[in-house]
Amino acid sequence: MCRWLAYSGSPLPLETFLLQPEHSLIDQSLQSQMGVHTTNGDGFGVGWYDKDQEPGIYHSVSPAWNDRNLKELAKHIRSHLFLAHIRASTGTAIQQTNCHPFRHGQWLWMHNGLIRGFDAVKRELMLAIDPSLYPSIEGSTDTELMFYLAMSLGLSDDPISAVERMAGMIEAVADRHGIKNALQMTIATTDGERLWVFRYSTERRSRSLYYSTDIRTLRELYPDNPRLAGMSEETRLVVSEPLSDLPGVWKEVPESTCGIVQAGEDELRPFRPRRGQ
Amino acid sequence: MCRWLAYSGSPLPLETFLLQPEHSLIDQSLQSQMGVHTTNGDGFGVGWYDKDQEPGIYHSVSPAWNDRNLKELAKHIRSHLFLAHIRASTGTAIQQTNCHPFRHGQWLWMHNGLIRGFDAVKRELMLAIDPSLYPSIEGSTDTELMFYLAMSLGLSDDPISAVERMAGMIEAVADRHGIKNALQMTIATTDGERLWVFRYSTERRSRSLYYSTDIRTLRELYPDNPRLAGMSEETRLVVSEPLSDLPGVWKEVPESTCGIVQAGEDELRPFRPRRGQ
Amino acid sequence: MCRWLAYSGSPLPLETFLLQPEHSLIDQSLQSQMGVHTTNGDGFGVGWYDKDQEPGIYHSVSPAWNDRNLKELAKHIRSHLFLAHIRASTGTAIQQTNCHPFRHGQWLWMHNGLIRGFDAVKRELMLAIDPSLYPSIEGSTDTELMFYLAMSLGLSDDPISAVERMAGMIEAVADRHGIKNALQMTIATTDGERLWVFRYSTERRSRSLYYSTDIRTLRELYPDNPRLAGMSEETRLVVSEPLSDLPGVWKEVPESTCGIVQAGEDELRPFRPRRGQ
Amino acid sequence: MCRWLAYSGSPLPLETFLLQPEHSLIDQSLQSQMGVHTTNGDGFGVGWYDKDQEPGIYHSVSPAWNDRNLKELAKHIRSHLFLAHIRASTGTAIQQTNCHPFRHGQWLWMHNGLIRGFDAVKRELMLAIDPSLYPSIEGSTDTELMFYLAMSLGLSDDPISAVERMAGMIEAVADRHGIKNALQMTIATTDGERLWVFRYSTERRSRSLYYSTDIRTLRELYPDNPRLAGMSEETRLVVSEPLSDLPGVWKEVPESTCGIVQAGEDELRPFRPRRGQ
Repeated sequence: MCRWLAYSGSPLPLETFLLQPEHSLIDQSLQSQMGVHTTNGDGFGVGWYDKDQEPGIYHSVSPAWNDRNLKELAKHIRSHLFLAHIRASTGTAIQQTNCHPFRHGQWLWMHNGLIRGFDAVKRELMLAIDPSLYPSIEGSTDTELMFYLAMSLGLSDDPISAVERMAGMIEAVADRHGIKNALQMTIATTDGERLWVFRYSTERRSRSLYYSTDIRTLRELYPDNPRLAGMSEETRLVVSEPLSDLPGVWKEVPESTCGIVQAGEDELRPFRPRRGQ
Repeated sequence: MCRWLAYSGSPLPLETFLLQPEHSLIDQSLQSQMGVHTTNGDGFGVGWYDKDQEPGIYHSVSPAWNDRNLKELAKHIRSHLFLAHIRASTGTAIQQTNCHPFRHGQWLWMHNGLIRGFDAVKRELMLAIDPSLYPSIEGSTDTELMFYLAMSLGLSDDPISAVERMAGMIEAVADRHGIKNALQMTIATTDGERLWVFRYSTERRSRSLYYSTDIRTLRELYPDNPRLAGMSEETRLVVSEPLSDLPGVWKEVPESTCGIVQAGEDELRPFRPRRGQ
Repeated sequence: MCRWLAYSGSPLPLETFLLQPEHSLIDQSLQSQMGVHTTNGDGFGVGWYDKDQEPGIYHSVSPAWNDRNLKELAKHIRSHLFLAHIRASTGTAIQQTNCHPFRHGQWLWMHNGLIRGFDAVKRELMLAIDPSLYPSIEGSTDTELMFYLAMSLGLSDDPISAVERMAGMIEAVADRHGIKNALQMTIATTDGERLWVFRYSTERRSRSLYYSTDIRTLRELYPDNPRLAGMSEETRLVVSEPLSDLPGVWKEVPESTCGIVQAGEDELRPFRPRRGQ
Repeated sequence: MCRWLAYSGSPLPLETFLLQPEHSLIDQSLQSQMGVHTTNGDGFGVGWYDKDQEPGIYHSVSPAWNDRNLKELAKHIRSHLFLAHIRASTGTAIQQTNCHPFRHGQWLWMHNGLIRGFDAVKRELMLAIDPSLYPSIEGSTDTELMFYLAMSLGLSDDPISAVERMAGMIEAVADRHGIKNALQMTIATTDGERLWVFRYSTERRSRSLYYSTDIRTLRELYPDNPRLAGMSEETRLVVSEPLSDLPGVWKEVPESTCGIVQAGEDELRPFRPRRGQ
């Protein structure tokens, strides 16, 4: 099972939530108490926004806890919006082109979950990708395919509708192949302005997804961290698993829900796959 | 431009032709005098046969001249039939799943050359791959696609016919996209018994391909190598570029030709792509 | 905490005890139930003997369970005597030159444990290494230093005496620096003929070390493995942790003991560090 | 032969001089027309200063021209002072801990050249390193040893004197071992404020070293680069080989010279090794 974290708020060094000794994504990965897999050593990735329109990306196939370059970058790169992902492969190769987040133009996309029976449905789903986008696919994961499928279905115009149609199409193709419970997904995607997160599974028993309530809870979580003192009230973390056990800090994204992190009020909406056009 | 070497003959440590200080594939790669690219540091691979039916494979994305594991393996692994390949990427990612030789069951396949306009024709060619083979594709190269295309067209039953049809299909699809001189290829493929090599290009100006005349010429090339003293008369090397400049050692595979290295007499036959059903 | 395995007996593909789905070294590493560290993803190594006098070595910094080259090699390389090691770094860099087993000429050496206060004593211990051996040191681990220290103290002439003197010297230097419980070690070393294993710690609470009683117990452990049917009666495994929980299969090497695996009767002897000349 | 570049001036994305399609360090490395070695694929490193006192470091053992992470970082990281280095190993292992620049506290250090007969003198020179610094050595290169030797001899207080004494000590030890022409070096070192560069060899035939005259010459070199338009007049590049052939752009650092790049007037001074206390 993969783990991921999405941050939006006042600019911070990436290390703040990635590498702190306790309650960080990478520390959590080494412990891996809640995961199905016993470890998450199959690749790491982070994508971040700065002044450039296109986000930066760092992908590594070293275990994150050993990666010296990651430590350097996480200390020196600051960002107001970044995604980080630790991979536990469900079988596809361990290589940089299979590391999340995936990027296309100004968009990033990452995922925890899987398409069941992927070998059976991969070819048909690949055909549904817009021919102009097809050559951009570099790796072999279900996640990258989902990204380009959503992109083909209008991600950049209407992200929620595109992901609804993507999920509907995957379920429809799986149905035709007699595959049950085709989709299990928690997704984060962003254009550098807003962040959309999705929690859904065909069987309605989706993997966990949490968000931080507000900046005061973050300050509670890291009381000794002076960086948090001056943070914007709009700062928000979304995580596949809670980074700590402090009560009151994390709220669960409900089953079959889409969340939008944005300037002003954030939103939660019911999520339902949509078949056909 | 990639470089490759195929060996068939008396069992030898792989290092004999890969790592010898002079006239070896890797030494040649560092010098790279004849290549279009100035170096070949984009990945290395070797596939070898032993008692198992399925060949072994070693793929590395370190430059071959730095790879200590390769040196160890090449010294300790002996084989009577092996393929070795040094990659110069034409743009696709540097990763193990893009390293040659590619393997499917007992078959190996490697290539120097390219499909022109690959981005434009990739999707259509992918569709021509047998759906049962499609999930086996792990990388993003034109070479792996060519392999599974040939496999879909009967490589394991009739290799020459399959490669003729593969080349014909690639040229036909490229024609529809208005791409000229679609194919440039020197290919080696083997099932562990026989070795087929192909030299062809749409424009009939194919990259070079050479074979060693007979064992006596090899002994001439490596006069101090006691290993060659006891070698079978059927020992044969096929190489993308000559490993030395000694006159009389290497013969060029003619333009638009297929060669078969096998027990008994080897063969050279004209090669012509075949279009149609 | 590292894990290791030493095999001596009838020639086998390395994969037999390294990669089998159950009870193998790498499977065990992923589970890592007994270890202090939660995982062992900091590098892998195997050294094996064949017809050459100098053993072959494969070192990798990918987690062993992800390493495709390792799977290929372990399937295709057969050996009558090999050492395998999975590293959990105690702080030094993750790099091939820090992977066990270490090699010098025909000797291999691997280790689980540590020199406490290594930073404080490293320089003085380095000075005790024979100047002619000093340039051979490539990495930064305590294990490699111990190897060259033992080599300087006569490992190739009298391995037990050399390791006794090595341990004595480390403890003496640590004493001078006020370091308690300086040494914690389980070591395997071999010249390709015999295998010496050591279990010792200054505090006399050494990490575990086990050996297989005889070939019948191995057959019991892998009842469906036809390879074991024809194995020599002298086949022996020594492991840092038992590969299975079957009662009667594994015997513990006693505290402060040296074991010798050799043609004829194996031996267990008390081990005691020796100070002075 | 290694290649390096040191930049001091208005903050720029690292890519400006590292990855531009023409006249960049990495492009030059692929071409490698002036080098003794035919390529420089043995590791890459960059160290840069930002608001933190300790510089950031990125070390990679992939060939620089293939390293996607490097491309991302070089695009997104901006710095007013950075060092970049492409390594051609003279024999020591290809690993991150052998990549330049080396860092200790706020200092960076990189080098092109070698200590002749390094195996013979390494141990004695290691002994001259301050015991408190000794444990910081992680790799096996002559360059890292030179750095810690200079550090032991007062680099942080008086860099020029420390390098003079370092060079004198190396030559003295080499003399005792009968090694001629012991030292060949072009070095760059910085504390984040000033940059010191050295060109020296025992035989007085030192490898090349060049500096850019002033910002107008840089603008001439990259006429279409809008970034250069607003650059500070104090902007300065020092390079092991010129990045272009434009006449008048580069000035050679004279034989046996030390240069200081600093606020105000830069300086060139004669450099002479110093032996004795």
